[in-house]
Amino acid sequence: MTEKLRVGIAGLGTVGVGVAKLFANPDGRLNEKLVLTAVSARNKDRPRAIDFSTYRWFDSAEALAADPEIDVVIELIGGAEGVAKNVAEAALGRGAALITANKALIAAHGAELVAIAERTGGKLLFEAAVGGGVPMVKALRDSVAGCHAKSVAGILNGTCNFILTEMETGGRTFADVLSEAQRLGYAEADPTTDVGGWDAAHKLAILAAIAFGARPDLEHVRVEGIDNVTLTDIRMASKLGYRIKLIARGLVTAEGVAMQVGPALLGMDHPLVNVSGSLNALVADADPLGQLTFIGRGAGEGPTAASVASDLIDVAEGRAAHAFGRPLAQLAAAPRAAPVERGRYYMRLLVEDRPGVVAAVSDRLAHEEISIESFLQMPVHEGPFVPIVLTTQTCARAALARAAKAIEDAGVVAEAPAIMPIEESRNRGWGA
Amino acid sequence: MTEKLRVGIAGLGTVGVGVAKLFANPDGRLNEKLVLTAVSARNKDRPRAIDFSTYRWFDSAEALAADPEIDVVIELIGGAEGVAKNVAEAALGRGAALITANKALIAAHGAELVAIAERTGGKLLFEAAVGGGVPMVKALRDSVAGCHAKSVAGILNGTCNFILTEMETGGRTFADVLSEAQRLGYAEADPTTDVGGWDAAHKLAILAAIAFGARPDLEHVRVEGIDNVTLTDIRMASKLGYRIKLIARGLVTAEGVAMQVGPALLGMDHPLVNVSGSLNALVADADPLGQLTFIGRGAGEGPTAASVASDLIDVAEGRAAHAFGRPLAQLAAAPRAAPVERGRYYMRLLVEDRPGVVAAVSDRLAHEEISIESFLQMPVHEGPFVPIVLTTQTCARAALARAAKAIEDAGVVAEAPAIMPIEESRNRGWGA
Repeated sequence: MTEKLRVGIAGLGTVGVGVAKLFANPDGRLNEKLVLTAVSARNKDRPRAIDFSTYRWFDSAEALAADPEIDVVIELIGGAEGVAKNVAEAALGRGAALITANKALIAAHGAELVAIAERTGGKLLFEAAVGGGVPMVKALRDSVAGCHAKSVAGILNGTCNFILTEMETGGRTFADVLSEAQRLGYAEADPTTDVGGWDAAHKLAILAAIAFGARPDLEHVRVEGIDNVTLTDIRMASKLGYRIKLIARGLVTAEGVAMQVGPALLGMDHPLVNVSGSLNALVADADPLGQLTFIGRGAGEGPTAASVASDLIDVAEGRAAHAFGRPLAQLAAAPRAAPVERGRYYMRLLVEDRPGVVAAVSDRLAHEEISIESFLQMPVHEGPFVPIVLTTQTCARAALARAAKAIEDAGVVAEAPAIMPIEESRNRGWGA
Repeated sequence: MTEKLRVGIAGLGTVGVGVAKLFANPDGRLNEKLVLTAVSARNKDRPRAIDFSTYRWFDSAEALAADPEIDVVIELIGGAEGVAKNVAEAALGRGAALITANKALIAAHGAELVAIAERTGGKLLFEAAVGGGVPMVKALRDSVAGCHAKSVAGILNGTCNFILTEMETGGRTFADVLSEAQRLGYAEADPTTDVGGWDAAHKLAILAAIAFGARPDLEHVRVEGIDNVTLTDIRMASKLGYRIKLIARGLVTAEGVAMQVGPALLGMDHPLVNVSGSLNALVADADPLGQLTFIGRGAGEGPTAASVASDLIDVAEGRAAHAFGRPLAQLAAAPRAAPVERGRYYMRLLVEDRPGVVAAVSDRLAHEEISIESFLQMPVHEGPFVPIVLTTQTCARAALARAAKAIEDAGVVAEAPAIMPIEESRNRGWGA
């Protein structure tokens, strides 16, 4: 009988308590080869659902990470810098295993941490950093491994997806749903990281790195949030046969890797269109594998703790190998490519309600050789203005942006036109 | 630099050639740590898309499997007995790695093969046996690993799913679509294994074993095929807001493990309802992970070869551990439980078109205390008969079967009533 691996948890928030519960379950698998021995949190006396008094207590997470009697350190503190980074460096620096749910840390410093692990023989695992309970990291790393990955596209932020779903199903405004989500604890008091698209960008940088065999390149992600999506957009998209989702997309082009996060209109047969509420999902496209979709719970105690547990078992079974699927030396600093900005687009305009305005809009589009595919006017007024939306045939986003500028300059709109791409669905039959 | 592992492929059909193509790709990952050295097939001279003349040729697959200069044997012959089983036993018996796409072999003899592997140190991997390119085996084994799996439900046979999708979208009969599928090579000349539900049953036995920590128990799967699903069923289900799919379901009950394969009506928000054509999908439900869905290409050269490749990389990276997730000694012979046969049901009857018949049907249902939820009559005649369909409120299937028998005995129907369960969808919001 080999000795069990000794585990320490740094950070006893929701997920930390969830992991401890899995250790406390006598039927669970964690105790077969692992034993929880130590914990750390800022406040020892805070009431928690688990009694932690039988474990070694560390006031300092860094001290826990440095302790040679802990074989596996679980970092659940969060943040790309400071204590979380110190903990990761301390654990990996002495050759221990580090399991983390910290997407900001991995997106910003993943390559540095792998370098430390490769030097010391430490192991770095971060399934819980992306997609909550959905095993996106392992799937890309282990199952798409023998293939040539062409793209990843996902719904990676449960808060945004919850807000968009509630706006659609409840007919409520963005601000209304956001404040409810904050009240219920689904959204942070400062919601910028979520609704601004940054949380999804962190996750995309990690997934693209694994899928495309590159180093995480967070700074290269082009980020747009959902804060400009209006109830008008949701309703008009629905009338036109689409649903709006915040899509994180990584793509290999002839030039390199392109990454972007932003709202998009999905057709009703798109593989991500029915991913509702707080669910997360990923679609990977690879040769010769084809299209692979994963859907599951993207956040919360249970799903995230389950992902931490799967990493623990990988460590216990000796399955933890290269964090990004390959040794660091083989991870390219992938050339940066611009997102593909050619396709069909949706445009919303708030125009003056008088004769000639639609003609003025059409003229500016025609001048850029952009064909209108559909056109809808809302039967509501906002003062002297009325919202209209249109979808284009395939065009360059740059040309559409020029047309939008010309429309604004013509003085017929109350605000800059809003533009969102329409995501084409894939053929899903035998040949797909 | 360590020596590369030497790989031999036994069976050069579609998948075997697909794997060889991955080795032939200079950008691919397979050649980093592996090298294809030997192949075997029944007919050396058959034209193939790859030139195999530079590899060692074996007329006998068993001889290839026994050759000590081959470290990894890929078995792509098929069948639960005979040559395929001999190949598996020979390779594992000498401590080599065996990778197989053979669901019949694993469902019938998986435990025996694991026993050999545990004795010799050989490795057994079979991602390609289930779900084509969808990594169902690895997901259940590695990602649901720390959780308590409660159920798995999947669309595991692409041929059945293709036929049902074509019947719905093209308004064509079962026989018509089947003969086209046979002509196109999607269905075998003898379609019993697919349309009778047996192929799905093999796959379910394997997935349930991994999910529930048990040995495969093929004989315990209750199997019903799609050969009795009519175009009337498809159309009436659609009118009622459902879509018919062949569902393979494994469930942990208080008594043990229940497994069944059969057609069912899915509501339009069910996670599997949009899995169309030849796609395969799996929904796993586990505590505290929640519901996890995987969708992808279920068959064909590329997806299946990609799954074989992911197993090859597991072997090369030293990640291949227990085939069913645990040592054989820890795999329980799970107690057999009966499927849960209580819920809402769909019933189709071909009744005489005369007054009093509907009353006779309703009476027999009322006698078993079964409430009718909806009732539809088709505006078509089949001779003196007319099809009617109804859905019940929650009832026991046994009671419904007694009512069906009583209706038959009353002499008002042309054939035994057809019964299919209605699968309830899950709540998918924050609490799901």
